[in-house]
Amino acid sequence: MSNHRPQDSWGSWNSTNVHEEEVFELDETGNLQDPAIKKSAVKYKDGSSIDWLQEEALERERDHAKKSQRSIRALLSIWADSARVWLVVVATGIGIGVAGAWLDVLVKWLGDLREGRCQAGFFHNQVTCCSGLDPGELCTEWQTWSEYFDVRYIFVQSLLQSSIYVTLAVAFAGSAAVLVNTYAPYPFIALSTLEFPEIKAILGGYVFDAFLTPWTLLIKALGLALAVASGLSLGKEGPLVHVACCMAFMFSQFFKQFKHNEGWFIVKRKLLAASAAAGVSVAFGSPLGGVIFCLEELDTFALESDVMWRGFVASAIAAVSFQYVDPFGTSKLVLFQVTNGGDTWRAFELIPWLGLGVIGGVLGSLMIKLNVEIALYRRNSVLNEYPIVEVVALAAITAAVGFLVVFTRVQSSELVANLFQECDPAKGDYHGLCNPTAMWENIFLLLISAIIKIAFTAWTFGMQASTFRACIGRAVGMLTSAIQTSYPTAWLFLSCPPDPSIRCVSPGFYSVIGASAMLGGVTRMTVSLVVIMFELTGALSHVLPIMVGVMTAKWVGDALGKDGIYNVWIAMRHYPWLPPVDFNDRGQTAADAMRPFSTLVMIEEDRLTLKDIENLTNAHDFRGFPVVRGTELIGLATRDKLLSFIDLHLSPETNSKKCRFYSQKQSISDEFEYLDLSCCLENSIIHLRKEVPQSLLVRMFQKMNLRQILFTHRGQLDGMMTKPDVVALLTAHFPHTGALASSES
Amino acid sequence: MSNHRPQDSWGSWNSTNVHEEEVFELDETGNLQDPAIKKSAVKYKDGSSIDWLQEEALERERDHAKKSQRSIRALLSIWADSARVWLVVVATGIGIGVAGAWLDVLVKWLGDLREGRCQAGFFHNQVTCCSGLDPGELCTEWQTWSEYFDVRYIFVQSLLQSSIYVTLAVAFAGSAAVLVNTYAPYPFIALSTLEFPEIKAILGGYVFDAFLTPWTLLIKALGLALAVASGLSLGKEGPLVHVACCMAFMFSQFFKQFKHNEGWFIVKRKLLAASAAAGVSVAFGSPLGGVIFCLEELDTFALESDVMWRGFVASAIAAVSFQYVDPFGTSKLVLFQVTNGGDTWRAFELIPWLGLGVIGGVLGSLMIKLNVEIALYRRNSVLNEYPIVEVVALAAITAAVGFLVVFTRVQSSELVANLFQECDPAKGDYHGLCNPTAMWENIFLLLISAIIKIAFTAWTFGMQASTFRACIGRAVGMLTSAIQTSYPTAWLFLSCPPDPSIRCVSPGFYSVIGASAMLGGVTRMTVSLVVIMFELTGALSHVLPIMVGVMTAKWVGDALGKDGIYNVWIAMRHYPWLPPVDFNDRGQTAADAMRPFSTLVMIEEDRLTLKDIENLTNAHDFRGFPVVRGTELIGLATRDKLLSFIDLHLSPETNSKKCRFYSQKQSISDEFEYLDLSCCLENSIIHLRKEVPQSLLVRMFQKMNLRQILFTHRGQLDGMMTKPDVVALLTAHFPHTGALASSES
Repeated sequence: MSNHRPQDSWGSWNSTNVHEEEVFELDETGNLQDPAIKKSAVKYKDGSSIDWLQEEALERERDHAKKSQRSIRALLSIWADSARVWLVVVATGIGIGVAGAWLDVLVKWLGDLREGRCQAGFFHNQVTCCSGLDPGELCTEWQTWSEYFDVRYIFVQSLLQSSIYVTLAVAFAGSAAVLVNTYAPYPFIALSTLEFPEIKAILGGYVFDAFLTPWTLLIKALGLALAVASGLSLGKEGPLVHVACCMAFMFSQFFKQFKHNEGWFIVKRKLLAASAAAGVSVAFGSPLGGVIFCLEELDTFALESDVMWRGFVASAIAAVSFQYVDPFGTSKLVLFQVTNGGDTWRAFELIPWLGLGVIGGVLGSLMIKLNVEIALYRRNSVLNEYPIVEVVALAAITAAVGFLVVFTRVQSSELVANLFQECDPAKGDYHGLCNPTAMWENIFLLLISAIIKIAFTAWTFGMQASTFRACIGRAVGMLTSAIQTSYPTAWLFLSCPPDPSIRCVSPGFYSVIGASAMLGGVTRMTVSLVVIMFELTGALSHVLPIMVGVMTAKWVGDALGKDGIYNVWIAMRHYPWLPPVDFNDRGQTAADAMRPFSTLVMIEEDRLTLKDIENLTNAHDFRGFPVVRGTELIGLATRDKLLSFIDLHLSPETNSKKCRFYSQKQSISDEFEYLDLSCCLENSIIHLRKEVPQSLLVRMFQKMNLRQILFTHRGQLDGMMTKPDVVALLTAHFPHTGALASSES
Repeated sequence: MSNHRPQDSWGSWNSTNVHEEEVFELDETGNLQDPAIKKSAVKYKDGSSIDWLQEEALERERDHAKKSQRSIRALLSIWADSARVWLVVVATGIGIGVAGAWLDVLVKWLGDLREGRCQAGFFHNQVTCCSGLDPGELCTEWQTWSEYFDVRYIFVQSLLQSSIYVTLAVAFAGSAAVLVNTYAPYPFIALSTLEFPEIKAILGGYVFDAFLTPWTLLIKALGLALAVASGLSLGKEGPLVHVACCMAFMFSQFFKQFKHNEGWFIVKRKLLAASAAAGVSVAFGSPLGGVIFCLEELDTFALESDVMWRGFVASAIAAVSFQYVDPFGTSKLVLFQVTNGGDTWRAFELIPWLGLGVIGGVLGSLMIKLNVEIALYRRNSVLNEYPIVEVVALAAITAAVGFLVVFTRVQSSELVANLFQECDPAKGDYHGLCNPTAMWENIFLLLISAIIKIAFTAWTFGMQASTFRACIGRAVGMLTSAIQTSYPTAWLFLSCPPDPSIRCVSPGFYSVIGASAMLGGVTRMTVSLVVIMFELTGALSHVLPIMVGVMTAKWVGDALGKDGIYNVWIAMRHYPWLPPVDFNDRGQTAADAMRPFSTLVMIEEDRLTLKDIENLTNAHDFRGFPVVRGTELIGLATRDKLLSFIDLHLSPETNSKKCRFYSQKQSISDEFEYLDLSCCLENSIIHLRKEVPQSLLVRMFQKMNLRQILFTHRGQLDGMMTKPDVVALLTAHFPHTGALASSES
């Protein structure tokens, strides 16, 4: 094997011979060279990829068998199958809605605990503690820690406040780290708790069941609450999607047929896709955004259209459950409802929006690069050994720095909500943000906050709570507003109402655009991002500016680096996942990318005995072997079928017989000389000419979820291409492919 | 040819030898047997299908050529290409938004004209005429015709009113019919102005440019306004989508490269998909619904993901333009905003909802069947000869019957808007609908209206304005409410508030569910329908009940008949369109469906001269000919390439040479004996084994937009399958396939 590139193996699928089994060897038993394992009940081990076409064929066979019975019982069984799927979808929707709501409550309470406590009851957060007061009345129930300990001296007060703040933040972060590091059944992936790459890979057919256990669910939910409460720059959308997938997996385990996997792999993946939509729906309060996120970002285009419907049902149920628990006490789904300050916008505002888009694209690309560098540095430095120390130190620094700047002290989501608001004298001022005399100080403070947050976020990437985006947007908005009020008669601003008391520029809305543009730059999402923001803000008139920002950010970002952060991480982790991008070959054809005939491990017809084939399967862990006669292609024999055939027929008496792959007997003596292995050939195998353009080839793999394609010419085998080869083709431009492939465990 | 089934011809693609060129022979010149035509500038004639893979290859080549130049000019040219596409998208969005708004104004005015006129100005409709009044003040500006003519006697009044009503309705409908019948450049498709089948087919690659001319745009817009105003049971969503597509087509014609088609077919189709989204967005006031409608119903899954983004931009711009024109004077996008009467719902309401779902499914299937029967009857009866008479008669009957029942007299959309409202004493009563003493009369009246509308709608199918759905929903809601108020203490209703003055059941909301369920039954849409209804009503809490209704309707409908109305019409018109459904083979393989080797028209290598091949192409209008040597497959030679090769090389001196399809010379004399036609072979041709399951085969055609697949075994050609064969496979269960294939012209 050493002189061959692997074709398409069980686990080792990349050209550098890194075995995924080695990478994600999570239990001690697996030895791939032992055939007993291969035939065991577990069809796919963690770290392998499912064979989509084969699984679909199995599902079809199962359905067909049931339908052909035509008895009441068979009908009931079909109905029950469908009912089970729906039960899991509905249960997941309700579960993630309720869990999301209670996580929000927990995070809010823990976060407020860093600053003080409620006299009326320890388990109230600041808002519920002070609710029910008349406007203007002072809230006496909520005590800061210095009030609680009755400290009088201002110096001691601030010392006490800051030390409790930092201590609790460190304690939360530390316990989250210990929790995840000690109990999570999969390798602790340092701080970079990016879940989307794993989820994308799993939906694409990668097998990683340890990622989805109930135990993971619990750890993840608790860890999420603690980590977010500690003030670390994490988003909750990734963990929530992960939790939703865990829930779907857990609920599906209640049913026998889902548990014993055979023929249900694809159904389970479709369930996971639907639950991911529900997770996004809860994280952003955006049920339609969840569905479209799934379509666009998790690439469920490749799955069937019923995924969309299930995802929609799951999201809607999750959103309604969330609303029912009503954690914000507002009976509204959205956190950041924008006050419709200026519902109209003027043409000149296009300039700051485009500016925000450009900033978003540039900073987004920068963040991706920084994030990659930090990840590589972490991996190769001493930090790799002490993940918990890293988390604790980071939490301490975040808390200490954050405490100094008033805008970064509060919870991220609270800050964002306030930044999205327009200034309204009736509503009170948020940390002096609306004070017109302190405008330049505020812009400066906002930019400082943004820089601090960018630095921390590059270290601990998260999506939603990364407030720096909103900070910059607000700053640009305030700047625009300032310029406009300073030069109200300038040609550019003639479209503004002449009355200076009427606001022409709405800085709060600029925060929204800034946040969208920055997110667009980092993730390169388009429709789903706009839909999420549309649902967050609720105003159709805001859609166009957001679109402008997101689009500009995507263009600028794409010019600076082609991939979004999720795809970069997938490439670094080296998951066998095909990004749903258009691949542009430069006139190259399959011939330039395929494994040529001479490097393939093949079965020669009429030459090998069954024992030889067994040796071949032991020596190479490919999933399929081309069968040839000379250079003529006979077909592709799959490993599974070969192994089960060997299992049945290998005996001393067949030992001398040669294997051939068709059933017509040429002569009477054939039966004594040859074994017929034609049943081992794969039916659903695609042949192409090697002159086919690479882009068509890639699209075929993407759309049909293929594992391999054979190239023939006049019946002669020219070469072969497998999914890993295509992944390698698509990630060839990225220098750090596979850099994080083996885990820290 | 007579003893062969056609393989895959230019135009005649179905097994009954109906030539589409004959069907849609729109100009007098075309004679397919004349090679001069085949080489003319028009690559695809109306009625043929584009070759998706080939067009994609052309696009790639074009892009590649531009990119490889690396000059500023080439860069600018790439940028300009993209800018042009966006320009068309934005222009279409604005255009359809404004057009939709003005069409609404026109329809409202024409509709109101049937009942009276405005004194303040002839061009005001009833609402604008009476606007600006204090609540309670009587509107004196609006005069019914009897007031205008100062008729005193009640009998003469109603006679005058009804005769003017019917006369104007007939006049509107008649002029619409004359307009469309006389000027529309494509065959007048009787009354059944279903545009979605055509649009779906066009997006799938069918060429039907006459459907999209600016002239069609004008006729369609005017005809739509007149027809809807006349009270015919037409929906405006189909025509609006059609108008949007016409606009996109028109705007794209402003650019040279879109006009001269080569290599832009797919870009143009993507533009059409985006504009269809904009059309739906305006028709329903639902920008997200438009996008999802495109994804789900128009099957743009098969297109690339950038379609979604463009569709989203187009929808959003269309919605904002529509809002800007503000035809309803409400500054709201939605027509049917539901008053949030009862925002909560109770468990027992699940029963009437399920009931509505079942009714929706049953009536939907019934409607499809009725609609098909009527279409077949119309086609085969004397009505076929006199389409205008049919329209006029129908309009007269609709108006006469409609005038008798108060609920059917007003414009459909007005009725729906009122049915969706909850009863609110503060707002006044709509035709006594809220009068509690007349409840049973109202339910009876609603059911009568529903039956009338069902009958007319089956004749003239339209989607949105078909009010019968809302009528039935309202009736069920009122019934439920009545039962609840009669037996408030029953076990089932214990969840209702004990105070009888608080409404427990909201009948207006039942109309929404009823309308959704019925639409679901007719069209079998799921997600897009719920999203549209969600955006129409605006309340998240309403999503779950709507989902229940739509889902039940779809299940019941699917049990009674598999296809939605659009797919039925596509099958009847026999368009080469693959529905995006899961095809379940019953264990059959490609071998059962393919055209076997013996029936294929092939080119035998080394046997035929160029002249023979020319004769072959003249005798058969297939798009591709398999090249074989004996039974061994060499490749597929495409008609285009063969013809251009013949054009270049056919001369007396080549007449004696045989054609072969590879370039390696076997001996020196080869050059004198053989012509090398290897350049005529198609590169992107897929070979499969004939044992491949049919469902996989169908999915391959669906996802990859293929034209043909060859089946080989050990290099020997077994058979071939083309897109028409797959369409035939998918429509095999439907008895009336192709029944309306040839037009009335």
